[in-house]
Amino acid sequence: MAEFELIRHFVNALPHARAPRGPGDDAAVLGRLCVTTDALVEGVHFRRPPFSLEDVGWKALATNLSDLAAMGARPEWWLCALGLPRGFSKADAAALARGMRPLAVKHGLALVGGNVTSSPVLSLTLTLAGSARRPLLRSGAKPGDVIYVAGGLGEAVDLKSKAQRRPVPLVNEGLLAARYARAAIDVSDGLLQDLTHVLEASRVGAELTGGTFPEHTGEDYALLLAVAPARAKAFERAWTSAAPLRRIGTFTARRGLRVDGRPVAPRGFDHLKK
Amino acid sequence: MAEFELIRHFVNALPHARAPRGPGDDAAVLGRLCVTTDALVEGVHFRRPPFSLEDVGWKALATNLSDLAAMGARPEWWLCALGLPRGFSKADAAALARGMRPLAVKHGLALVGGNVTSSPVLSLTLTLAGSARRPLLRSGAKPGDVIYVAGGLGEAVDLKSKAQRRPVPLVNEGLLAARYARAAIDVSDGLLQDLTHVLEASRVGAELTGGTFPEHTGEDYALLLAVAPARAKAFERAWTSAAPLRRIGTFTARRGLRVDGRPVAPRGFDHLKK
Repeated sequence: MAEFELIRHFVNALPHARAPRGPGDDAAVLGRLCVTTDALVEGVHFRRPPFSLEDVGWKALATNLSDLAAMGARPEWWLCALGLPRGFSKADAAALARGMRPLAVKHGLALVGGNVTSSPVLSLTLTLAGSARRPLLRSGAKPGDVIYVAGGLGEAVDLKSKAQRRPVPLVNEGLLAARYARAAIDVSDGLLQDLTHVLEASRVGAELTGGTFPEHTGEDYALLLAVAPARAKAFERAWTSAAPLRRIGTFTARRGLRVDGRPVAPRGFDHLKK
Repeated sequence: MAEFELIRHFVNALPHARAPRGPGDDAAVLGRLCVTTDALVEGVHFRRPPFSLEDVGWKALATNLSDLAAMGARPEWWLCALGLPRGFSKADAAALARGMRPLAVKHGLALVGGNVTSSPVLSLTLTLAGSARRPLLRSGAKPGDVIYVAGGLGEAVDLKSKAQRRPVPLVNEGLLAARYARAAIDVSDGLLQDLTHVLEASRVGAELTGGTFPEHTGEDYALLLAVAPARAKAFERAWTSAAPLRRIGTFTARRGLRVDGRPVAPRGFDHLKK
């Protein structure tokens, strides 16, 4: 939890917006605008090989798009700050862009600005903005809500897998979910840990059923959703995505997290300890 | 010019917004919103010492605020992406924040989100947003406009100086200028180079008078402004800032850059060659 403590320390020392308009959710909410920033650093988030520069470009955009997906936001524009190691060429920059292009085109994202600097290792820090009439927050879950996971879990544990190099952000699924769900988070730190963020923000507990959950899902862009029971059937009928949608449990008034009736401690992935 | 070529290559490979709503100005313009992103990387933009962590925090915010100042935008909110080296402590994070706090408070900037990752060296990539009714663009200068420089030039050449470690962004000066000027840029790459950006975007030339100009002003947060001759007197009367305001020349219909009548080649600072 060192990462969260350090962030809390930093944020509390500065003038900051209060939740749900500030740090804590996958993106900041400013009116209809949802804004997120996420970095990819060589040696920390990827190595070359197995990553090609196209893979790196794809993944940088996918990671940020997943944050917008978790807000149920429609992607609009982005800024790209690049840290480039010595000898990084125009052809290398073009390769990065080639990896980004399919996702930018698919989701109608316009590059509006950026920054380039030299850096000891390749790093990409992207800022993406999207719009949502009613953004999905972590704090919206109510006791009785059905817990869904949309997308794959645990498929990216193999560091050379395609799920690692070319994860698919569930943007359209997030837009659909925004019409049915009342809370969401993207599963980037591990299912149980991200679920715990929702439990804390929503002041509820959860009862999971159906067996075991992978501990490390740190590289899957699955969405965790809370849907009111009365809306669950309609939500499932409306789900036309190829990504699997699984009911994994229920939010409860009783605090804490239980799997098949037994209390479990939250676990996850600390990016600073990696 | 390697930096600009690489950027052009990258941007052209991606769906991007057209100027004045896209890459090229100090900030992107999206309706009333002006958004900018800028990075500070250890070993590239600063070393410790002479920089303290407070200095680093100050400078990261100052650099981005200067971009908003050049748009004549009022700062509103920001995102902070931190890359932290091994062993970076909570106390270190607090020191960064302490350096940022005075500028955030002075300019009413609310931290709304961010990201933390490990990194081989300390890096800070900030995204700032401000609002402007009529943003100052590089493309607005007309022949006959008076060229002003607001703020100091060349004072930051000494890498240990306070101007280097604690540059003061001319935010309020930019807000005042927005009422009188029709083009602006912040002088971050060197006066002549940044002026050249304005000449290209505005399709005009310039005649500078009054002697020599420092070649390297890469770390001063001065503003270069274009003011219609009919508005110049009123602008000078309205200028109440302690920062010096200097008339350095005139924009001309004849293309190219002249100093005291002699043509000069643009020069400046390439961050990738540093």
